[in-house]
Amino acid sequence: MSIDQQLEYLRKGFAQVITEGELRARLEESHKTGRPLRVKAGFDPTAPDLHLGHTVLIRKMRHFQDLGHRAVFVIGDVTGLIGDPSGRNAARPPMTREQILKNAETYKEQVFTILDKDKTEVRLNSEWLLELGTLGMIQLSSHATVAQMLEREDFSSRYRQGKPIGLHEFLYPLTQAQDSVALRADIELGGTDQTFNLLLGRELQATHGQRRQIVATVPILEGLDGVQKMSKSLGNYIGVSEPAEVMYRKVMQISDSLMFRYYELLTDLSMAEILRLRHGVENGSMHPMEVKHDLAARIVADFHGQAGARSGRKTFRRVVQQKKVPETMAEFPMPAEMRGKRHIRIDKLLRAIGLARSGAEANRMLRANAVAVNGTKHRKMTYSVPSGVGELILKFGKKWARVRL
Amino acid sequence: MSIDQQLEYLRKGFAQVITEGELRARLEESHKTGRPLRVKAGFDPTAPDLHLGHTVLIRKMRHFQDLGHRAVFVIGDVTGLIGDPSGRNAARPPMTREQILKNAETYKEQVFTILDKDKTEVRLNSEWLLELGTLGMIQLSSHATVAQMLEREDFSSRYRQGKPIGLHEFLYPLTQAQDSVALRADIELGGTDQTFNLLLGRELQATHGQRRQIVATVPILEGLDGVQKMSKSLGNYIGVSEPAEVMYRKVMQISDSLMFRYYELLTDLSMAEILRLRHGVENGSMHPMEVKHDLAARIVADFHGQAGARSGRKTFRRVVQQKKVPETMAEFPMPAEMRGKRHIRIDKLLRAIGLARSGAEANRMLRANAVAVNGTKHRKMTYSVPSGVGELILKFGKKWARVRL
Repeated sequence: MSIDQQLEYLRKGFAQVITEGELRARLEESHKTGRPLRVKAGFDPTAPDLHLGHTVLIRKMRHFQDLGHRAVFVIGDVTGLIGDPSGRNAARPPMTREQILKNAETYKEQVFTILDKDKTEVRLNSEWLLELGTLGMIQLSSHATVAQMLEREDFSSRYRQGKPIGLHEFLYPLTQAQDSVALRADIELGGTDQTFNLLLGRELQATHGQRRQIVATVPILEGLDGVQKMSKSLGNYIGVSEPAEVMYRKVMQISDSLMFRYYELLTDLSMAEILRLRHGVENGSMHPMEVKHDLAARIVADFHGQAGARSGRKTFRRVVQQKKVPETMAEFPMPAEMRGKRHIRIDKLLRAIGLARSGAEANRMLRANAVAVNGTKHRKMTYSVPSGVGELILKFGKKWARVRL
Repeated sequence: MSIDQQLEYLRKGFAQVITEGELRARLEESHKTGRPLRVKAGFDPTAPDLHLGHTVLIRKMRHFQDLGHRAVFVIGDVTGLIGDPSGRNAARPPMTREQILKNAETYKEQVFTILDKDKTEVRLNSEWLLELGTLGMIQLSSHATVAQMLEREDFSSRYRQGKPIGLHEFLYPLTQAQDSVALRADIELGGTDQTFNLLLGRELQATHGQRRQIVATVPILEGLDGVQKMSKSLGNYIGVSEPAEVMYRKVMQISDSLMFRYYELLTDLSMAEILRLRHGVENGSMHPMEVKHDLAARIVADFHGQAGARSGRKTFRRVVQQKKVPETMAEFPMPAEMRGKRHIRIDKLLRAIGLARSGAEANRMLRANAVAVNGTKHRKMTYSVPSGVGELILKFGKKWARVRL
């Protein structure tokens, strides 16, 4: 690929590159010298699983790998102890070191569904941050001013609104910047909500006599609702380790307009091909539902292969289309006292999530043959969860609900 | 002494006690249990010598020792690396660890001219602060909010004025607060400009399940000019290791009103005795100059004994009063190129400080017998500095100047 073609390939899905000129120059240099660029991205292992929101960035790292460069995947095991406040309006509760290391292990497994293992360095930032110690932290913090930190939009808005900002939250962008220094990153990727932090890394490198890293940001992926950021805690996510059937069904429930955004950010299809699909839907030559099936199949195949995509499609057609299951319904987590159990008292569950107004009503309906679980009528009080099932779709008379296991 | 008498004794020279009730209760408890109170004060070894401004606090520690308590003298060898921004409107340049340890040694020597060695613990805060490490610093910083820090007057005024505040400056009050936790201080003493930091220590102790320390502040001592804080960098100071003659002469140059403040903050005279002197001066029964000689003698005696006080008085009378040296005159540091030299080209010095307009004028005046050094006429180009001399008082025609060695 020529440098222009490389830039075109990399540009897809980026919100901003600071600066394009520097990126071009660094790509040219790498081409001349044969030195692969070090493309850094950091992840805080604050949740046990990655979801598709994370893969937007990981996919961009893979695109750099496709061009021969090196992905440096930083797991913020120290920064996770602070809790990244970026784009949030309250302090995150810090996690224990054990939780973090456990999550870090899962991340490592999950990330190689996308990244090329041979061109990836996985690093924990405790490696260099713990060495800093008391004096190093003081020194590090001298490289930023309070005013500079308060320029960051989320901080300034919290400050104006009188919401507390813990001092440790100011240390977060600095430790992240220190990662870039320690790793001599050529490029750092992050969400647009990370722009401030990424630019701080750029400046800190200059303070340490290094060349400034190029900063490239990706948009924040909307969750299944199409409005809020995809996030585990909001429940509007697709986890990379979810079963093929669940992934497939979740993709099928998004809106048609979100569908093209997912094509852009969650597949390797070129922008030209995506535009062709969009025009097809708009001029009626393609059915939006079929285009969405194609998207679902592509996304599932990334994590479960072609067989997973086929199985997801089959289940979806059978359960949703043949049984006339509504596309959206109320969702609930499994009530705590039943979670992880193999045998579930279905009458109690119906009552706990409010489908039945009382245990008596639940029993009456069970006896009346008016209850179905995952598409099959059910009459007994106890339901045994088959292995591999990730959710229970409950039908109670004419009411529906989805319970996540 | 009764508890009331003890409180009276301690109260002299305090600007504020938070709270008097707690101080009384803690004194009573100590009286009952026989456990001496731990009275902490911290000093940043940012200058090689202590001056009388520091001794205001050290004297109050001695007063606690007089009542059987334990002085905990903390040398901020770590905090010195940050540079205390309290009451200043700009960041202090951080010092090297070597400079700090060297200054700490001098402090240790100088502090025992006032404190009782047997009832004193001298501690370096590196003992416990270095152990904190990266994670400990993050944890520590989570105990304060940005808004809380910006409430501190000097920070808020710098912030409003757009003057940079380094993030490391926010860490300073926290590390100082951590000192109180590590030392389990009962009482912390500090200048009024330290009130915020001292109160933070009080809160941090509560966070760690300790009883809150009592906070007692002393006023900031005005320098010889009677206006600005006594400080080495402003040159308006009396150093505790200055020669008796220099100390004596410097006290004699302060104003009559400042004299009574110095009596209060720099001597052990009771408030009743100080009032008696003040009335004596006001009603004309005492000569202010004699009262000032008494003050000078007391201050010098603290550091050089009675012999030093006598020698200071003798020199002062001989040089100043008999030779009609003006009480104030322009002061200069020794120009860098002559500093530390034993033989000085007096013509060059006269020109460097501007007493002579040219080398030719300096030479003409030397030949004309119109130049005197430290009260003695001088005709030669070269002046050999006698050992032990701390300053050169130059007379050039009718003009005077003082050059500090």
